[in-house]
Amino acid sequence: MHIGFLGLGNMGAPMARNLLKAGHALTVFDPSAPALAGLVEAGATAAASPAALARTDVEAIITMLPAAAHVKGVYLGEDGLLANVREGVLLIDSSTIDPHSAREVAAAAVAHGNPMLDAPVSGGTGGAAAGTLTFMVGGEAGDFERARPILASMGKNIVHCGGAGNGQVAKVANNMLLGISMIGVAEAMALGVALGMDASVLAGVINTSSGRCWSSDTYNPFPGVLDNVPASRGYSGGFGTDLMLKDLGLATEAARQARQPVLLGAAAQQLYQSFSQQGNGALDFSAIINFYRKQEA
Amino acid sequence: MHIGFLGLGNMGAPMARNLLKAGHALTVFDPSAPALAGLVEAGATAAASPAALARTDVEAIITMLPAAAHVKGVYLGEDGLLANVREGVLLIDSSTIDPHSAREVAAAAVAHGNPMLDAPVSGGTGGAAAGTLTFMVGGEAGDFERARPILASMGKNIVHCGGAGNGQVAKVANNMLLGISMIGVAEAMALGVALGMDASVLAGVINTSSGRCWSSDTYNPFPGVLDNVPASRGYSGGFGTDLMLKDLGLATEAARQARQPVLLGAAAQQLYQSFSQQGNGALDFSAIINFYRKQEA
Amino acid sequence: MHIGFLGLGNMGAPMARNLLKAGHALTVFDPSAPALAGLVEAGATAAASPAALARTDVEAIITMLPAAAHVKGVYLGEDGLLANVREGVLLIDSSTIDPHSAREVAAAAVAHGNPMLDAPVSGGTGGAAAGTLTFMVGGEAGDFERARPILASMGKNIVHCGGAGNGQVAKVANNMLLGISMIGVAEAMALGVALGMDASVLAGVINTSSGRCWSSDTYNPFPGVLDNVPASRGYSGGFGTDLMLKDLGLATEAARQARQPVLLGAAAQQLYQSFSQQGNGALDFSAIINFYRKQEA
Amino acid sequence: MHIGFLGLGNMGAPMARNLLKAGHALTVFDPSAPALAGLVEAGATAAASPAALARTDVEAIITMLPAAAHVKGVYLGEDGLLANVREGVLLIDSSTIDPHSAREVAAAAVAHGNPMLDAPVSGGTGGAAAGTLTFMVGGEAGDFERARPILASMGKNIVHCGGAGNGQVAKVANNMLLGISMIGVAEAMALGVALGMDASVLAGVINTSSGRCWSSDTYNPFPGVLDNVPASRGYSGGFGTDLMLKDLGLATEAARQARQPVLLGAAAQQLYQSFSQQGNGALDFSAIINFYRKQEA
Repeated sequence: MHIGFLGLGNMGAPMARNLLKAGHALTVFDPSAPALAGLVEAGATAAASPAALARTDVEAIITMLPAAAHVKGVYLGEDGLLANVREGVLLIDSSTIDPHSAREVAAAAVAHGNPMLDAPVSGGTGGAAAGTLTFMVGGEAGDFERARPILASMGKNIVHCGGAGNGQVAKVANNMLLGISMIGVAEAMALGVALGMDASVLAGVINTSSGRCWSSDTYNPFPGVLDNVPASRGYSGGFGTDLMLKDLGLATEAARQARQPVLLGAAAQQLYQSFSQQGNGALDFSAIINFYRKQEA
Repeated sequence: MHIGFLGLGNMGAPMARNLLKAGHALTVFDPSAPALAGLVEAGATAAASPAALARTDVEAIITMLPAAAHVKGVYLGEDGLLANVREGVLLIDSSTIDPHSAREVAAAAVAHGNPMLDAPVSGGTGGAAAGTLTFMVGGEAGDFERARPILASMGKNIVHCGGAGNGQVAKVANNMLLGISMIGVAEAMALGVALGMDASVLAGVINTSSGRCWSSDTYNPFPGVLDNVPASRGYSGGFGTDLMLKDLGLATEAARQARQPVLLGAAAQQLYQSFSQQGNGALDFSAIINFYRKQEA
Repeated sequence: MHIGFLGLGNMGAPMARNLLKAGHALTVFDPSAPALAGLVEAGATAAASPAALARTDVEAIITMLPAAAHVKGVYLGEDGLLANVREGVLLIDSSTIDPHSAREVAAAAVAHGNPMLDAPVSGGTGGAAAGTLTFMVGGEAGDFERARPILASMGKNIVHCGGAGNGQVAKVANNMLLGISMIGVAEAMALGVALGMDASVLAGVINTSSGRCWSSDTYNPFPGVLDNVPASRGYSGGFGTDLMLKDLGLATEAARQARQPVLLGAAAQQLYQSFSQQGNGALDFSAIINFYRKQEA
Repeated sequence: MHIGFLGLGNMGAPMARNLLKAGHALTVFDPSAPALAGLVEAGATAAASPAALARTDVEAIITMLPAAAHVKGVYLGEDGLLANVREGVLLIDSSTIDPHSAREVAAAAVAHGNPMLDAPVSGGTGGAAAGTLTFMVGGEAGDFERARPILASMGKNIVHCGGAGNGQVAKVANNMLLGISMIGVAEAMALGVALGMDASVLAGVINTSSGRCWSSDTYNPFPGVLDNVPASRGYSGGFGTDLMLKDLGLATEAARQARQPVLLGAAAQQLYQSFSQQGNGALDFSAIINFYRKQEA
């Protein structure tokens, strides 16, 4: 299949490579010349602009962009995709943005005659490279089925979450819970150790009890409890604190618009914000446990 | 073995019955005559007072009491256990109390020549009746091995958490995390549904993603997502909001004494307190999701 | 002076009337015909559109609009003020919006040759009617001096807060603190009364001690402590909970953009949001004390 | 009048000196020999123990002790005041403790035939030395009148707060509000400055608006806004963070016992706890603003 791909950053580039590996023809665009060159070298064709990409004979276009403003610009702008793409081309936005904006863009696409899906991912750059991402997809069931084989080249868990925007809803809801759980684990581990327990023994109790969660049994923030997690390598790699902050910002803003309280979600956002302000924004978000442990001079 | 058991309430009575079923001889005490009569009917011998119980030839004494004040009274009072028990009898306190008090009583016991374990449980009245409780045990390893076969008559998961008081530490740390996670799940589910998602679809996404936790995959608070949980029967049964409040009170007080911050733990305590003040203290703690959903008039 | 005025709602209408009373000639616009008619009856001239208003010979234009989207539309839209106004006309926006948007619009105005001030107000509809508003003004000092006599017809406290956008900064900072203080007073009063104190005695202690604040000594939320405040009339009138929510949304969003933590500010926003969700959004914000008091059935 | 005074620490010693200056005969006790010697040099008589002090012909006894455990020990212990004092002697406890304990001790005193007042102070060591403390007094009105002239030698604002324990209630309620307000001011000032405002201009706006409070207009935490406050001298002197933490611990514990939620009060406690854990417990509590400002390396 001939597929268009816009946005070749840390996530988009490996995703696009996996489409090439799966045998798809790929036309790509990114404002960064080196990013573009990388994909061309891997076998893709470069387009000169989003508009130029949209005017090729692609059957589907995937976008992976930093924020809602970019998504709106690329889809709705005067030289954007909708102004140039032919009817019927399937549009898939894998950016993580707020549900409201996702629905606004999807409605414009549908009005223009283009089916559209929001399909944000989880799994990070590791999952993008390995082709093991999870896609949370919002849109019509028929469009979802059409997209499934394409997405399956880039991920292994493809979930239909309901109508337009629901992929974004699922992602912000899950990640808000993740952000809260990680702080909960950090507080529980730091408290238990301060009261005299061994961290690994405590993690063992929690992981077989009602406190069990992914942040404890798979991604424990206390150094030495698990191997191969950021906590065992100085909190490098993983999912950065500032990325968690972005997702919590989307969650609390979506909650504000829905007039829905999220007291712990908002508290978690502020705690990561404090931690980031102290210079830790680039560390994996599990480093928040350092907020709860007396630091050595 | 001849065992003493003090405290025949909702938890203590079924625990004592399981000791009888396992073939132990049991001498019991409770200030409530009907509670005492129930166990006598089941085959136990009644003692007239804690002191009288302590002066029998029991090899071990188990206590299951409401709060630290009762534990201190029963163990340290003038007519209490330590003043009357012979050296060497194994003392096991299964009450949930603060680690500081547990260590104070254990130190007094050891000074008197009695090995002592703190062994709080999780699993609720259902687990107590079924003999499937989890015991989180603090104390010397040799004493733990001595207690293990006794505890195995009442529970199926017997965990040694380290020295004296660590059973209590494990319990308050786990339950604080549980209290936080449940509110996190409540906020995420209520937000997702308010933004247009189906509750079961959202729970399905979370349970296979990084938000996964016991409060979501085993005890989901949203009505209709899981069968056989309090949410599917009007939040009756289960683990009452006021019991969660008690445990969060122990956790924040232990944190205060350890000069350890627990920001989300304290926020969770206050939210359950608000919910209880509005008249919901007897509902299962997962009912906190109603705090986040517009109630019909 | 001939002045233009756009936005004749609950705040704008009485402000415009005070300009008429002060002897200014007024050309007004509002999309609501009855709102427009009311001002015409009072002596103003109606314009058919923002563009039409901008093309008159007004020396200054004041806008009083609900949110940033309206302000951007009215100033920056194709048929908006900047596209039609002549150079040099002084532009004053009294809407309460986020500082970032205020600075964006001001920069566009200056680029077009029009001095612009952001001048949000406090004092409510009562202050608007009485002409006793406080104006917090951001912009060039010279422009501020030019605006001062106009603003003095509508308010009695005209404060220069620094460069463009700083009027909005001052307002969101003050109102965030107000939102926090009111909840602080609510918690302190409810706690003291629950512990057995008389509300008026407690307020008396606080008002002469270090807890003293406007929310306690001028606007106490406990019924019966002060006369002539919303608490003494069932929380009607005053500054609605949903208006406080709007301002806290601006504050936390401005904080997010500045990467600045506001833990209590965000907690306050969520508490008012809960209170609003329970059906209390139209009550004065001091009614938040009901969140802390057991309600009768 | 012959008065007894127990507890000659940082607060008690200067208070006792002021009683001597006012012409009272003073018998004093403190477990610290140097503390005792200091007062003897100033003209007081030393007692060998609380019991010995109680057996003199004092007409009133004042205690100033660190915490509830000390108060209970001194009043209720076997060698304590109640076991040795003659009926009718007026007992005044100026310690800051929880209202529940204050009421328990007062009830025991009354049962023994001694009128008792709880009379915690505000004003710090500076107020103690200058004789300008505020006394918040709980107890019978007649006893309050009897105590007033004594207290007036040590303070200038003597407030009757109602029955036994209400002095403590007033103090914890006021100080909880103070702890919240200070963080509110810190957040508002740090946010405003981060968004481009001058700190003094912002403080000026707040101090004439609805955000006005003691923490802003009398004790502003931003360096350079006010002279002669801790913020202008590196946060030395003043009211230490760890003392604020103690009072917030009393407030949240009193709230827990009263089943009363205090969401911002608990959040404030946790924030000061974090700040203290980072090594700042000895700084004036207004230093909490550093929690909100990017620190230089």
